[in-house]
Amino acid sequence: MQPMSIDRLETPCLLVDEARMTRNIDRLKARLARLGPTLRPHLKTCKSVDIARRLMPSARGPATVSTLKEAEEFAAAGVRDIMYAVGIAPAKLDRVLALRRQGVDLSIILDGREQAVAVAASSRAAGDRIPTLIEIDCDDHRAGVRPDDPLLVQIGRDLHEGGAELRGVITHAGGSYDAIGVAALERAAEQERAGTVAAAKALLEAGLPCPVVSVGSTPTAHFARDLTGVTEVRAGVYVFFDLVMAGIGVCGVDDIALSVLTSVIGHQRGKGWILVDAGWMAMSRDRGTANQKVDQGYGLACDVSGNVHPDLIMVETNQEHGILALRPGSVAALPELPVGTLLRILPNHACATAAQHDRYRATDGGLVTAVWPRFSGW
Amino acid sequence: MQPMSIDRLETPCLLVDEARMTRNIDRLKARLARLGPTLRPHLKTCKSVDIARRLMPSARGPATVSTLKEAEEFAAAGVRDIMYAVGIAPAKLDRVLALRRQGVDLSIILDGREQAVAVAASSRAAGDRIPTLIEIDCDDHRAGVRPDDPLLVQIGRDLHEGGAELRGVITHAGGSYDAIGVAALERAAEQERAGTVAAAKALLEAGLPCPVVSVGSTPTAHFARDLTGVTEVRAGVYVFFDLVMAGIGVCGVDDIALSVLTSVIGHQRGKGWILVDAGWMAMSRDRGTANQKVDQGYGLACDVSGNVHPDLIMVETNQEHGILALRPGSVAALPELPVGTLLRILPNHACATAAQHDRYRATDGGLVTAVWPRFSGW
Repeated sequence: MQPMSIDRLETPCLLVDEARMTRNIDRLKARLARLGPTLRPHLKTCKSVDIARRLMPSARGPATVSTLKEAEEFAAAGVRDIMYAVGIAPAKLDRVLALRRQGVDLSIILDGREQAVAVAASSRAAGDRIPTLIEIDCDDHRAGVRPDDPLLVQIGRDLHEGGAELRGVITHAGGSYDAIGVAALERAAEQERAGTVAAAKALLEAGLPCPVVSVGSTPTAHFARDLTGVTEVRAGVYVFFDLVMAGIGVCGVDDIALSVLTSVIGHQRGKGWILVDAGWMAMSRDRGTANQKVDQGYGLACDVSGNVHPDLIMVETNQEHGILALRPGSVAALPELPVGTLLRILPNHACATAAQHDRYRATDGGLVTAVWPRFSGW
Repeated sequence: MQPMSIDRLETPCLLVDEARMTRNIDRLKARLARLGPTLRPHLKTCKSVDIARRLMPSARGPATVSTLKEAEEFAAAGVRDIMYAVGIAPAKLDRVLALRRQGVDLSIILDGREQAVAVAASSRAAGDRIPTLIEIDCDDHRAGVRPDDPLLVQIGRDLHEGGAELRGVITHAGGSYDAIGVAALERAAEQERAGTVAAAKALLEAGLPCPVVSVGSTPTAHFARDLTGVTEVRAGVYVFFDLVMAGIGVCGVDDIALSVLTSVIGHQRGKGWILVDAGWMAMSRDRGTANQKVDQGYGLACDVSGNVHPDLIMVETNQEHGILALRPGSVAALPELPVGTLLRILPNHACATAAQHDRYRATDGGLVTAVWPRFSGW
């Protein structure tokens, strides 16, 4: 497209600072090149073919997805190595098999024997050994089998002897989102590595295969010092970063590539409020920084060029209204922002904010240089 | 469509119990028929032409919208009387005028002189007196001019004498969402009525026109005892209701027509957790019941037929994972729900949950009887 000025966009809309995004992508790429494992980027954050191609090692993958809709969309765009990294519901196996018949190496994950028996039965019925990874619980935060639980080997046998392909083990150190500071992040990364490698060892010692040892979260991917025994790393939100990641020290505020462009639509001067046309519909209801040291409300306000307005945050939202005010205790001056002024709001959680929009506007300074469609749904 | 069993749907997806929805629609219709004012339903909740037609007095309207995208979509479906009820940003006036040139009686709202001067100038330039309502702040919760603020008459003059059409006054009693119980809700409704009627009186006494006196919120619409001086009422979420509305006593849990269908995908038995494939992407991040007497987490679980599982709520979400557990302090038994079990989750906030989906499945008992598309964006 012909570059156009940001001033000509309708608000609210979603912006991606392409230079920052490229810096974020290159940073993780360089780290993993040093550490060894392959990067299998998680495409649930971007849900965009244009951005996915910048993340993956090649146009064919590998990639991680959180829905079968993502798997289908990226497969249609030529991706051939995809992991669907949410515990499988047996009713979804027909869609999995349909994608595999199209030549996509689609793998799935699970953490229970009921699921393993169902996957093995589907594999036999379809004459297709569905590649399956066992989800490991490395930090007690959500799903998965503990590495030392005898259930792990039982599930492995259900799969391997039942007719599926036991491809390996996978974990997600979701607990790392609560780690703050370098030492805590390094510990979370080592806990994730050690637990997953221990699970792989248990399978191998039981005479079962375990070619893939997959770990991943944006915080641990950026703070792991050693990934011995790990074959691949997954991460998603690093492509944009966000205020939650800045709050735990994975990035700086000036690394955040995603923002919502909004217009000032009114003032309540007695209360120190500036009203804008980005509410929770544009920002999402995510309050991920609420329990961090610095609560950013629903987002941090910047001028149209991306310079932070000190302490100006979105303190409240309705569906199509955002209320900006100085954060409690601030001694900054409330900027004078007439009706019509354009602002950029940095989000708490890039995955949630991006999900509220159907396209990205790529920006270079004050110019829009590309429109990248984004899909949603299941 | 040929009715099909709910069991055949892919999860997660959005269900509307059509009988409950019809009951909710009829309830408000009957109330307002008794009280007098016209209903101008707010279509921001449903964003669906199929549902809008069940809400509006006629296929031509009237209707309220929260975005110009809604105005354009509903205009394309034949709606001719639309109020865009978010304070206008002057850059949006070209889209407003374009819709008006198509024969849509599109009105706008504002609460400041900068905006009024811009609307008057656009009206003169276009040779079209844009119908404009002044937003009144009846309860100090968001935008608007206080009824006794001299600014009100100044804005009225800017519009009327500047070349726009001063159509009246509008308020939204957002504060009513914090009212709990019949007496508090009745007080909120009377405060909304009295403030708006006082504002209309101030305009009339200044020799300005004020044909429309528009109030609205789902709680006040259901608890107003008298609407003398009010010409129209707006409400949106009443079409589906939700746990927030049940929490403040506007409806019962068994009036909630909207739910998310989800599948069990795993268990963490030691923790009493049931994992499902509806995370915040399907439910939204809305935690509207967090500060109510009964905190419903991210939603209340029902079996596939809609019977509530006592005390089983979604205590945590990730993007595509929900964790169900008994609410703190419950003495209920955790139901045995094998992998693959279908559940319905009632939402905190219908507007936010519906916004995460691109279609509704209308249900009648265990059957899906229709698919109603839903749009989003700006």
